[in-house]
Amino acid sequence: MSKHPRGEATRKAILAAAEQVFADVGYEAARMEDVAQVVGIRRPSIVYHFPSKQDLYDAVESDLFENMHAASRLALKQAQGPLERLLALLDAWLDYIVQRPTAARILQRLVADVTPRHGNPVRFSELALSDMDAVIEEGVRAGCFRPINTMLVINGVSAATLFYVCNGRQLGDARAYSPSDPDMLREFRALLHRTCCAAVLA
Amino acid sequence: MSKHPRGEATRKAILAAAEQVFADVGYEAARMEDVAQVVGIRRPSIVYHFPSKQDLYDAVESDLFENMHAASRLALKQAQGPLERLLALLDAWLDYIVQRPTAARILQRLVADVTPRHGNPVRFSELALSDMDAVIEEGVRAGCFRPINTMLVINGVSAATLFYVCNGRQLGDARAYSPSDPDMLREFRALLHRTCCAAVLA
Repeated sequence: MSKHPRGEATRKAILAAAEQVFADVGYEAARMEDVAQVVGIRRPSIVYHFPSKQDLYDAVESDLFENMHAASRLALKQAQGPLERLLALLDAWLDYIVQRPTAARILQRLVADVTPRHGNPVRFSELALSDMDAVIEEGVRAGCFRPINTMLVINGVSAATLFYVCNGRQLGDARAYSPSDPDMLREFRALLHRTCCAAVLA
Repeated sequence: MSKHPRGEATRKAILAAAEQVFADVGYEAARMEDVAQVVGIRRPSIVYHFPSKQDLYDAVESDLFENMHAASRLALKQAQGPLERLLALLDAWLDYIVQRPTAARILQRLVADVTPRHGNPVRFSELALSDMDAVIEEGVRAGCFRPINTMLVINGVSAATLFYVCNGRQLGDARAYSPSDPDMLREFRALLHRTCCAAVLA
């Protein structure tokens, strides 16, 4: 929308602030005023870039899945064979949301919340789901995986990555952890790989 | 609060309606008026039973975990040995939220949302977390399980049950399913057991 460097910088600052606000309070409760306050601008300046809260949310969710897809493509390029490719995809998702915990909380909300996506819950997430479809179908066709589908792998295996990133402070003081702590992340990743193999291998 | 049968019936109707509203829109966006409308009473009648939205939410979350704990105790009574007990606990959680999908969505939100629980996210969930602690500790002590903890099993294994129940319509038309469909549930449960064994067995 804006071709000026300053306009672009403002747009990016709005998106970053909106991602934080949507992660914190969810789509329904988020207000354009809250986002404006985080950026330090007035509401009309946001409306210039994003006419409605729905537009703003859509831009955040779209950016989130576009970047996740880019990370996935990069990881898949370097992996050979169905199982190695599936583990590479899961690793890419895990690393992406560990670095971007606001994205993890927005995705986590998306599973519970039918509100922001109305009739089409996969308008943006289809990118990630298709990445998973392709890897699973390849493994099943090769006889390397059981007759399993994306739904079962998303729910049964990759759900764990969102919980791991979101739950750092949600399980009580005695069970608190930092999801980006290298030792913790290594232990969780090993667990994720074990559960993935158990889920899919024929 | 109310000792009269009619008051008790109203209280239960309010709790059921509130569970639906909190599941649909989350704590922040939920309004006492919406709950009153579902029940077919006026706002002051709710306030008589639950003075604030926080009180109402707390009653819903407390009821949810109390019932889940009761189902867990019943299941654990009939299971012998660490692995059988852990699978029985996971099965009890799965069956509980399949029957009560509003509970699944509230739990799912609870992971993303720091709002409703303020300083103590485990005020009510501690019941479920302690049930898991006891079973895990027993298995680790017996040398049957790896040195694993509740955090890793909650995130790495049981997260799947919430995703399975919440995601029935969230993965797009081509991947839609009914979580309570017996065949689907049997397939998912088998997957859950495989990932659980891979996660914990020494």
